[in-house]
Amino acid sequence: MIVSLLTDYGHEDDFAGVLHGVIAGVAPGARVIDLTHGIPRYGVRRGALVLARALPYLPAGVHLAVVDPQVGTERRAVAVRTAEENRLLVGPDNGLLSLAWARFGGAVEAVDITRSPHRLEPVSATFHGRDLFAPVAAQLAAGAELADAGEAIEPGELEAIELPEARREEGRLTAHVLSLDGYGNAALNVSHDALVGTGLTLGREVELEAGGERCLASFTQTFADVPAGELLVYEDAYGNLAVAINRGDAASTLGLAPGDEVHVRPR
Amino acid sequence: MIVSLLTDYGHEDDFAGVLHGVIAGVAPGARVIDLTHGIPRYGVRRGALVLARALPYLPAGVHLAVVDPQVGTERRAVAVRTAEENRLLVGPDNGLLSLAWARFGGAVEAVDITRSPHRLEPVSATFHGRDLFAPVAAQLAAGAELADAGEAIEPGELEAIELPEARREEGRLTAHVLSLDGYGNAALNVSHDALVGTGLTLGREVELEAGGERCLASFTQTFADVPAGELLVYEDAYGNLAVAINRGDAASTLGLAPGDEVHVRPR
Amino acid sequence: MIVSLLTDYGHEDDFAGVLHGVIAGVAPGARVIDLTHGIPRYGVRRGALVLARALPYLPAGVHLAVVDPQVGTERRAVAVRTAEENRLLVGPDNGLLSLAWARFGGAVEAVDITRSPHRLEPVSATFHGRDLFAPVAAQLAAGAELADAGEAIEPGELEAIELPEARREEGRLTAHVLSLDGYGNAALNVSHDALVGTGLTLGREVELEAGGERCLASFTQTFADVPAGELLVYEDAYGNLAVAINRGDAASTLGLAPGDEVHVRPR
Repeated sequence: MIVSLLTDYGHEDDFAGVLHGVIAGVAPGARVIDLTHGIPRYGVRRGALVLARALPYLPAGVHLAVVDPQVGTERRAVAVRTAEENRLLVGPDNGLLSLAWARFGGAVEAVDITRSPHRLEPVSATFHGRDLFAPVAAQLAAGAELADAGEAIEPGELEAIELPEARREEGRLTAHVLSLDGYGNAALNVSHDALVGTGLTLGREVELEAGGERCLASFTQTFADVPAGELLVYEDAYGNLAVAINRGDAASTLGLAPGDEVHVRPR
Repeated sequence: MIVSLLTDYGHEDDFAGVLHGVIAGVAPGARVIDLTHGIPRYGVRRGALVLARALPYLPAGVHLAVVDPQVGTERRAVAVRTAEENRLLVGPDNGLLSLAWARFGGAVEAVDITRSPHRLEPVSATFHGRDLFAPVAAQLAAGAELADAGEAIEPGELEAIELPEARREEGRLTAHVLSLDGYGNAALNVSHDALVGTGLTLGREVELEAGGERCLASFTQTFADVPAGELLVYEDAYGNLAVAINRGDAASTLGLAPGDEVHVRPR
Repeated sequence: MIVSLLTDYGHEDDFAGVLHGVIAGVAPGARVIDLTHGIPRYGVRRGALVLARALPYLPAGVHLAVVDPQVGTERRAVAVRTAEENRLLVGPDNGLLSLAWARFGGAVEAVDITRSPHRLEPVSATFHGRDLFAPVAAQLAAGAELADAGEAIEPGELEAIELPEARREEGRLTAHVLSLDGYGNAALNVSHDALVGTGLTLGREVELEAGGERCLASFTQTFADVPAGELLVYEDAYGNLAVAINRGDAASTLGLAPGDEVHVRPR
C-alpha cells in the first residue's frame, strides 16, 4: 500500500526524511510518495487545496498531511476514512484534510489519534509528524484497523475549510484567488462548468480587475499561445480558470495573493 | 525496471509528486528515481546537458524528462529508444532528449505519443507530465512495447540541440559556458582530450577572459587546492574543464551565464 | 536493507539523483531514504548534528553522509560500524559521522575506503559521493563485508567533532546555539537533564541574552502557547532547549548563528 506525504517541512531539514525513516521501520513494505513538502509554512488552506486536487492521481492508500500551526495544543489529531475509494487521511483536525474527503464523497469514519496506541512515546510537543502521524499512517498501511488507531469520533464534528464562492453580478464574474503555484500562476475558484453563459470562452479577450487595477488578457489554451511576457487566462490542469503570464510571474506582477478578489468579464 | 524523472517543476508544488502517483498507479513495481526537479524553468539546454551526463550512472530504464515551454502547442511529444543499452527516453520533442540519445549511440526508434493510447483523458493543455509523459513512461516500464505507445516517426526528424564548439586561436582556447551548478561552478565545453597540446595542464597558472575582464586561476585537481575565495580551473566530475572559487560562487563573481564565451590560455 | 542519504548537494542539481542511480545499479533491492540534501554548503557540524539526532528514527542500515569541503585532498574516506545496532556509516573522515557513532555507543570497526575495491574508476577529484561513497554504501547494503570495503584503521584515529558545553555561572546558564532549522528555531546545547536545578521550568518567564541584547521569553510547551510574533523557549523534539518565535523566525530576529553564546536565566 502507498503512503503519501504532504507537509510544510521544506527540504532544508531532516523532518521529511525522518517521516520516511519512521514509516520504513513500521511498514517496510509500504511505498512512500512525497506529494510535496513545499506547502508554505502554516498554509493550511493551500495544503488542503493541493491535497484534494492531487489525490485523484494517486492510488488509494494512506495519505498523511501535516500543516499544523497549532501543534501541541488542544487541537485534535485524526485519521479519517473517505466514502469513496476507502482512502485513509491522517493529520491535524484543522481543516487540512477536509477538501480531500469532500472530493471522495465525504468522511464516513473518523478516530481521534491523539492518544493512539501506535504513537511513539514520549510524544514531543512540536513534532507530531514523527511521533504521531507517521507511526499511525504506517500502521494503517501495514494493515491495522482504523478503529484500533484511536477513539471513534463523529465525522460531522471534524473541522472543515470553507472556500469562498465565485458569483455573477452585472455581467461580470467576481472570483477569488484559490492558490498560487511556483510559477506564479493564480488559480481562481471558477470551474469549467461555471463558465457556461458568462461569455468567457476560448479565443476571447478578457478584462481582469484586481486590487483596483484593470488589465486585458487573452483566453487561450496554453501559455505559448501568447507572446512571452503577455497575460493570459486559461483552464488549468485541474479544471480551474487561472491567470498567468507566458514565461512570467502573474502573481507578483499583478500583486495577487490567495483569497484576493478578481473580477473577470468578457470584452 | 527504473523510471527516472528530470523536470523543471521545482519542489514548491505537487507536480513532481503527482508524477510519482500516476506511475505508482500504472506500474506498481517500478522503482522511481528523482534525478532532479531543479532544472531552471524553461531551461531546455540545461536539462538536456544534465540528462546526458547523469544517465550513464543510472541503470538502463525509462527516462522521463519534462522542460517544456511549448506545452499544449503543436510541438510533438515523443518516446525514443537509444542504440546502446536500449534506454527509453520520454518527453517533449524540443531537443531536451537529444544529448542523451547522442550519448548512447543515437536514436534508433521513435514514436509520436501525442495521441498515445496510454494517455490520461482528457489531456490538459498545460500538464503533459501528468497526462501524457508519466502514463506512457509507466506503461513502458511495465513492459508495453515502444511501438504500441504511439505512431512511428523517423528518428532523423527529431529535434536536436546544437552545442557551440570550443576553438583554438592565437595560443588560446575560446570556450563557452555549458552550464552552472548550484554551487556556482561553471562547466566549459572543453573535454579532457581537447586540452592536449594547449599547454593547459595541472599545476599551471591559467589566464581567463570573460566579459572583457581578465583574471588568473590555478589549474588544480580540486577546490581545496587553493585558499578559500580563490579562483581555480579543474576537470570536473563529468570530464569538462570548469571554473570555480573554493567555497565561493564563480558564476556570480565573474558574471558567467550559460552560453558565454570564455577565453583560456596558459600563463 | 535501507541506505539513508544526508548531503549538502541541494536540489538544484542532479547530484542527489545520481547517488540514487549508482545505488540502484549496485543494490537494486535496497530502500533509499533521503534524510536531507539541505545541509548548508560545507556545514560539517550541522550535518553531524542532524545525522546524530535523526538516525534513532531510521531502521539500522547503511547511512551515507557527504558534507565534504576537503574532497579530493588527503582527507580520508571511511566506513564505520557502530557498537550499538550495527549501523554502518559511510562518508569523509572530517567529523561528520562522529556524533552519530557516539550516539550508538561508539565506533567499533573502521576502514579507509579511499582505494576501496567497490569504487567507480576513475574516481573524480570532486564527486566522491558518486564514485566512492555511494558504491561502497550500496555494496554494504547488498551484503558485502565491512572489512572488504577498504583497509582497516583504528577507530580511535577517526576525526571527531568537539561540541562546546553549556555551563552554569552566577545563577545563569551560558549555552551555545547548536543549530538552526528552516523555521529559524535555534536549538541550544542544553538537554532536558541539564535544566534540573536551574529554575528554568515550564510556565516561567526566562531572560535571554545574546549578542549584547536582552529579551524576555516564556518557557512553554509549544509555539501556539504564545501569541503570534512572541518569543518562547521550549524543549524541542530532540530534547534540547530551543528558542523560537511563534509564526516567526527567531534566528534572524535575534541575529543568532550556530556557535553563538546565549545566556539564559529565570526571571
